[in-house]
Amino acid sequence: MWKLLLVVTSLLSLSSAYDPTWKSIDSRPLPQWYDEAKLFSSTGECFQCLHIPALELFMKNNYRPSFTYPDFAPQFTTEFFNPVEWAKIFENSGAEYVVLTSKHHEGFTNWPSNYSFNWNSMAVGPKRDLVGELGAAIKDYTTLHFGLYHSLFEWFHPLYNIDKENNFSTQYFVDSKAMPELYEIVNAYKPDVIWSDGDWEATSQYWKSTEFLAWLYNDSPVKDTVVTNDRWGKDTTCKHGGFLTCKDKYNPGVVQKRKFENAMTLDKYSWGYRRNAKLTDFLTMDELLSTFIQTVSCGGNMLMNVGPTKEGTLIPIFQERLSEMGEWLRVNGEGIRKTRPWIHQNDTITPGVWYTMKKESDGSVSVYCFVLKWPTSNVLSLGVPKPSSNTQITLLGYPGTLSWNKGSGSGIDINIPAIPFNKMPCKYVWAFKLTKLSNELKHHLLKFKPGQF
Amino acid sequence: MWKLLLVVTSLLSLSSAYDPTWKSIDSRPLPQWYDEAKLFSSTGECFQCLHIPALELFMKNNYRPSFTYPDFAPQFTTEFFNPVEWAKIFENSGAEYVVLTSKHHEGFTNWPSNYSFNWNSMAVGPKRDLVGELGAAIKDYTTLHFGLYHSLFEWFHPLYNIDKENNFSTQYFVDSKAMPELYEIVNAYKPDVIWSDGDWEATSQYWKSTEFLAWLYNDSPVKDTVVTNDRWGKDTTCKHGGFLTCKDKYNPGVVQKRKFENAMTLDKYSWGYRRNAKLTDFLTMDELLSTFIQTVSCGGNMLMNVGPTKEGTLIPIFQERLSEMGEWLRVNGEGIRKTRPWIHQNDTITPGVWYTMKKESDGSVSVYCFVLKWPTSNVLSLGVPKPSSNTQITLLGYPGTLSWNKGSGSGIDINIPAIPFNKMPCKYVWAFKLTKLSNELKHHLLKFKPGQF
Amino acid sequence: MWKLLLVVTSLLSLSSAYDPTWKSIDSRPLPQWYDEAKLFSSTGECFQCLHIPALELFMKNNYRPSFTYPDFAPQFTTEFFNPVEWAKIFENSGAEYVVLTSKHHEGFTNWPSNYSFNWNSMAVGPKRDLVGELGAAIKDYTTLHFGLYHSLFEWFHPLYNIDKENNFSTQYFVDSKAMPELYEIVNAYKPDVIWSDGDWEATSQYWKSTEFLAWLYNDSPVKDTVVTNDRWGKDTTCKHGGFLTCKDKYNPGVVQKRKFENAMTLDKYSWGYRRNAKLTDFLTMDELLSTFIQTVSCGGNMLMNVGPTKEGTLIPIFQERLSEMGEWLRVNGEGIRKTRPWIHQNDTITPGVWYTMKKESDGSVSVYCFVLKWPTSNVLSLGVPKPSSNTQITLLGYPGTLSWNKGSGSGIDINIPAIPFNKMPCKYVWAFKLTKLSNELKHHLLKFKPGQF
Amino acid sequence: MWKLLLVVTSLLSLSSAYDPTWKSIDSRPLPQWYDEAKLFSSTGECFQCLHIPALELFMKNNYRPSFTYPDFAPQFTTEFFNPVEWAKIFENSGAEYVVLTSKHHEGFTNWPSNYSFNWNSMAVGPKRDLVGELGAAIKDYTTLHFGLYHSLFEWFHPLYNIDKENNFSTQYFVDSKAMPELYEIVNAYKPDVIWSDGDWEATSQYWKSTEFLAWLYNDSPVKDTVVTNDRWGKDTTCKHGGFLTCKDKYNPGVVQKRKFENAMTLDKYSWGYRRNAKLTDFLTMDELLSTFIQTVSCGGNMLMNVGPTKEGTLIPIFQERLSEMGEWLRVNGEGIRKTRPWIHQNDTITPGVWYTMKKESDGSVSVYCFVLKWPTSNVLSLGVPKPSSNTQITLLGYPGTLSWNKGSGSGIDINIPAIPFNKMPCKYVWAFKLTKLSNELKHHLLKFKPGQF
Repeated sequence: MWKLLLVVTSLLSLSSAYDPTWKSIDSRPLPQWYDEAKLFSSTGECFQCLHIPALELFMKNNYRPSFTYPDFAPQFTTEFFNPVEWAKIFENSGAEYVVLTSKHHEGFTNWPSNYSFNWNSMAVGPKRDLVGELGAAIKDYTTLHFGLYHSLFEWFHPLYNIDKENNFSTQYFVDSKAMPELYEIVNAYKPDVIWSDGDWEATSQYWKSTEFLAWLYNDSPVKDTVVTNDRWGKDTTCKHGGFLTCKDKYNPGVVQKRKFENAMTLDKYSWGYRRNAKLTDFLTMDELLSTFIQTVSCGGNMLMNVGPTKEGTLIPIFQERLSEMGEWLRVNGEGIRKTRPWIHQNDTITPGVWYTMKKESDGSVSVYCFVLKWPTSNVLSLGVPKPSSNTQITLLGYPGTLSWNKGSGSGIDINIPAIPFNKMPCKYVWAFKLTKLSNELKHHLLKFKPGQF
Repeated sequence: MWKLLLVVTSLLSLSSAYDPTWKSIDSRPLPQWYDEAKLFSSTGECFQCLHIPALELFMKNNYRPSFTYPDFAPQFTTEFFNPVEWAKIFENSGAEYVVLTSKHHEGFTNWPSNYSFNWNSMAVGPKRDLVGELGAAIKDYTTLHFGLYHSLFEWFHPLYNIDKENNFSTQYFVDSKAMPELYEIVNAYKPDVIWSDGDWEATSQYWKSTEFLAWLYNDSPVKDTVVTNDRWGKDTTCKHGGFLTCKDKYNPGVVQKRKFENAMTLDKYSWGYRRNAKLTDFLTMDELLSTFIQTVSCGGNMLMNVGPTKEGTLIPIFQERLSEMGEWLRVNGEGIRKTRPWIHQNDTITPGVWYTMKKESDGSVSVYCFVLKWPTSNVLSLGVPKPSSNTQITLLGYPGTLSWNKGSGSGIDINIPAIPFNKMPCKYVWAFKLTKLSNELKHHLLKFKPGQF
Repeated sequence: MWKLLLVVTSLLSLSSAYDPTWKSIDSRPLPQWYDEAKLFSSTGECFQCLHIPALELFMKNNYRPSFTYPDFAPQFTTEFFNPVEWAKIFENSGAEYVVLTSKHHEGFTNWPSNYSFNWNSMAVGPKRDLVGELGAAIKDYTTLHFGLYHSLFEWFHPLYNIDKENNFSTQYFVDSKAMPELYEIVNAYKPDVIWSDGDWEATSQYWKSTEFLAWLYNDSPVKDTVVTNDRWGKDTTCKHGGFLTCKDKYNPGVVQKRKFENAMTLDKYSWGYRRNAKLTDFLTMDELLSTFIQTVSCGGNMLMNVGPTKEGTLIPIFQERLSEMGEWLRVNGEGIRKTRPWIHQNDTITPGVWYTMKKESDGSVSVYCFVLKWPTSNVLSLGVPKPSSNTQITLLGYPGTLSWNKGSGSGIDINIPAIPFNKMPCKYVWAFKLTKLSNELKHHLLKFKPGQF
Repeated sequence: MWKLLLVVTSLLSLSSAYDPTWKSIDSRPLPQWYDEAKLFSSTGECFQCLHIPALELFMKNNYRPSFTYPDFAPQFTTEFFNPVEWAKIFENSGAEYVVLTSKHHEGFTNWPSNYSFNWNSMAVGPKRDLVGELGAAIKDYTTLHFGLYHSLFEWFHPLYNIDKENNFSTQYFVDSKAMPELYEIVNAYKPDVIWSDGDWEATSQYWKSTEFLAWLYNDSPVKDTVVTNDRWGKDTTCKHGGFLTCKDKYNPGVVQKRKFENAMTLDKYSWGYRRNAKLTDFLTMDELLSTFIQTVSCGGNMLMNVGPTKEGTLIPIFQERLSEMGEWLRVNGEGIRKTRPWIHQNDTITPGVWYTMKKESDGSVSVYCFVLKWPTSNVLSLGVPKPSSNTQITLLGYPGTLSWNKGSGSGIDINIPAIPFNKMPCKYVWAFKLTKLSNELKHHLLKFKPGQF
């Protein structure tokens, strides 16, 4: 018995050893937890994630002439940063993992890096290990997964600039800064997600990405749980690595062959906090949920970014959106978590209707139909679900089943009950759950491989 | 011809000349515009309207040991202050007048005062005439009334402290600071509201309040339109002056004999902006509208305060609340503006129901019945409205009339229609309009004097 | 009874009471201590006593665009200000009185003025009563007199600007700021000198100067010891008041009818400390002593100004000059203190030779002859002293008497001994003391009135 | 004859390829220019070269609680730094080489290092290449040599701390920071002096010092002119390298076997500028010249350090001392420059008398006798110079020769003339030049090897 186990183990070990090639790296299945989660929050402490020209104009108008970017650091004080409070806000939002910016393009590390002397959050500004503190709070106070965003390149680093001038034939920057720090954060903070970025000017060969990933998957302390994305070199985006991010705010609208992530942000115009943002610059709940449903329906996860202030707070409008998201998920999460794309993504008759599906423990399949707007008539006509005689329909968060009729085509007409305002399950985007559809046979033809489809 | 004019003038003078006594001052009718308006927004630039002990602790933890209150001034930069944007935000909120803090207890004047050298917004910090800029924007871009908050006393002024040590037998501070500045802002900015404050340690005799008010009502450039409150000395609050404010967040719940104002703030814990406020520190729309309806129903106006940041912005959560308030008023304003307290304020059968009434141009009376929560059954039973055979009922923002039945007592049962979610007129607090009630006779017994009741 | 009182009052008025007229004010004799002292140090905390255009250029280049003058205040920290150390430095310099700037043209008061709220050293910047601290240190640790510089006008005060626009027909500024503060510092700090300044745009009538001076001389706590200067209105400079200052760096070179003061500064180009001053911008000891001797010789006192840093220190080069001045005075003070101008000021034969004289207790007269350069030959020929047979000559700080011969005219030839370098009494400007000259008769014709000549 | 020379030269070339061993490194002769120069100035921009405990106390009292060392950087503004002015001040001081601190223990590089991202003078604070600017000014405007101080270790660098915890068995810091930067400054700024420091916690093997020095002497752009010191590891100080510095303020008082340097500073208590230094904290000219003469007499060079302000200025007291030093050297430099230690260093009869000697172009020897105090009698008795009948004596800066007599022992008595004060050649420390002494024979026995003795 034990013998057998040992043999199996060693076989597993053999088979799990990834080579530093994209073919091998890409062969690793996505850890299941990531596929099943659908929503996460990210947040970063980049000082001013404005485009550089905008930043320069701003500084010209508001600072002494010789004031430059690094002079900002001491103003980055985070005196109100309360990691436990953050952890609770994120958990309460229904997010299942949180990704913190460990280092953005300006190169300031939010942990006491050994390779970024006096340009890190322990030495200048906060005087705190922001990564470590948030990581600990999330582990101690929530059940969320903790991940780290990491920018490979840095806007102003002289060694990077030298490499670039050498057409990336030298790797001074990679060897003395980018890679040492990446290994350092994995070892120190054991993140379940490495959200890589800033790769796009050079190849993955320059960045030594496959070497890193082979280590990450084979030998790192998070080898079994870690997930990564696809930003490991200009040859890899939307192609190699873990889940695909392709480009910012990637919302393809059709089902994807591989797991993807829609990285978007509550402030339409910036990843960082803007002190002068207007109300209309923030996504409304309708816009946010609409994006979310489309993303999940097509097989993606959604990253919902909120830029913190330099004082270390999440402004109330962000807290409100996150809170409403959580409220919504407490009603409708059943149709989101652990679901997978259905054979159809949106409806053929009624616009603004999106589908997900889930395999139940008894082997049957539930289909979730999300309507972005509440039906104005008392019948909701759907084209793609095919009813069987046993088909049952409920509205998530509302008691009882709904009556229905066969539709004019092969679809279904759901009778919408008259629900008093304050008995409505939620204020935006509602989910109808359909079971025992006759499309079910087709479902079974789809391969259910964890983490892929 | 000229003679006649002179006679008329002197008659007018006679009839309008107020003496500097409370009896005379109190005899002035409230200008009608104020009574008809119900909502206003106020905002102030006090640096840190925390209690002093809290402030001291904060400074101890975050500033160099010798840093004191006035050292903050240069950090008060208002670089993003856009008065036209503010004016539009306020107008869009449905507020009918806006009150800006001209000077708070710390004595910093938000206009270039002649009596506050180098402790004003033109000299230190903003380098702008904040009062003048906002006043101009409101006049040029909106139809709102513009008012000014003014604190009589100052926490740290040495002359005030001398007067206080002398048991207010001397008036050094009043003569060289408080009064010169009050006259200065009236002459310079012609405010329609003087919202006085900081009076409570001394009598109105010390402050020379009646002299000022007599001038304000007789001779000032705003003598015909200006409204004031009741904070003119510790002997006057809730007693003398214009409208009564009594105490902060004054929401008596029963009808008042004189016009009052409920001065409250969207941040439950502070009048000033707090950088570390949490989401739960802000009133929700339900809480805000509930307070508003009760206030109006009892004959008051509501002041809705939002504390701006030192950069000169209104944070998005404030903008959102103001915007939603405006959206609500666009549907329900008819039941608010120009209304007066009805013979009843709240219902005897259904809790959370408040009334207002309005005399229509044809002499009839409309009664507005506000429900804080949408009825869960399809009948709303009301105890105090007495139906006549001609009684008509509508829901503001919803087409058509509603059917009703005589209630079990002498009241009325309104049949609530099944309205699909997205045809609901608004998301919080709904207004039913009842006309031709048989209570109408009683209405006519109420005296309709403009500005009083 | 009343009659008697009135008589007594008028007698008092007659005997000591000065009227608020220049005739009466000017009739007061200068307190003797001032005439006998010859050197004093002054120092001020004006932030940047540059001309305004220079200041503006500096700020444009080095500060954020909206930074203005009052924003400097919090940077004025005086964290190293040690008043006892200052007191000792001044005493060690041989100065006999010290004048501190209580308020300069920018209006910032270096004491906690009741009339300059939040624009004073207790509220902003230092958080200290600089005037009070230095006054106490000088009183407790030295025998020096303590005086205060005070600027009547203020560059930017709005009330002053209003008065000025009104051609000084109004006196808002005088009544609420200039005079209340002047009375305040006299009562609070009991200065022996009021060094008035900033008077030049208006008349003494505008400033109410004679009223103040009458009070100062009749009723103030320093009525018997206080000395003032002549800057009390554009009609008074070089004409009325106490000692004459006429203009800055007033060094007339000929004897004056009234006591004057040469107000100069160790930095040739500025009264305030300049962070970028070069070595050549400071007076050398030769230049300083040359100015001093000429001033004393012509009947003046010399004010030697040193501008402190914003940290509250006197820079080492100032300390060095002050220290060398003290060293020099310990040898040569006898020819300086309590001396008066002689019948001649400088010599007719040898250039660079200046005289003072002193009446000894036995009624005889000593004449002091200061040579700015050490004689290069071994004979010093002087034209104006007339030897008698009893004439005795010594070199201050050198033992024994010097031999002499009658000069070719009616003067005297002093034999200069060969003194080894390190037996020289000092390194700059030497004093020969001549007694029992035959000019003595003429001396007696000069009237010796204390405080005048 | 010439042939032979050439052969020898090429042999020398062959043998001049230094190995990375101390034996080989030590065999290199000191470049002649360094031996002949005697005085240099150094200056550094370390922010606060106080001991850390003192610094911490200072910060506790004057900064907000979380303010730490790197937060100072933006305050290091150097807005008044004028390298041409500095170059002239140093040249005018008589110094022959200037050493600038390129990096002190706090690790901030005063040039835009590729290995110190955002912790260098181009990125933070000055926004200038201080090393480059001063180097260029010295080269373009003076004939001085330019050198660089460089601290190997850094107080706070994490990689250094890791190496240290590993008992210096790892060399992360050396490989990624210390050595790359040292090569960088040599290549970029071509300094004639590398003044190494901060070596003392680890061996030269850890620092890879001999590898660097072999490259410096064999292949660097300054291989023929560069001079270094002895601070290359705890095994090297006072033993290996170029000139010896042994410890700070090394003034042995007796002649040394190898060239040494007395590194001292005008502020007795600090290498960096102290804003609160008192006059008595600075060396007087007497103290400074006394140290200088002793140092030169014993075969050393003197480093005279002045700490600049954060604004980029040299304070006036430093300028004054440097200027007086230059004035003194213009008179007495003949007895300093290109001299070597004599057979005696100080006199046996008169204390405070020190000697140097110089070989003249005709092969004869001049001996310079420096007296720290001017003789009080008219005879100066010296014990060690042995007169011959041709012996001639002059006083540098004074015309003519001085008469002398054979002394009571075997020495000499010089007759000191009576020189009027203002014909004295200088104000401190005078030099008598003695030629054709009978000690001369002995001189010739001393080996004259350039750069060694």
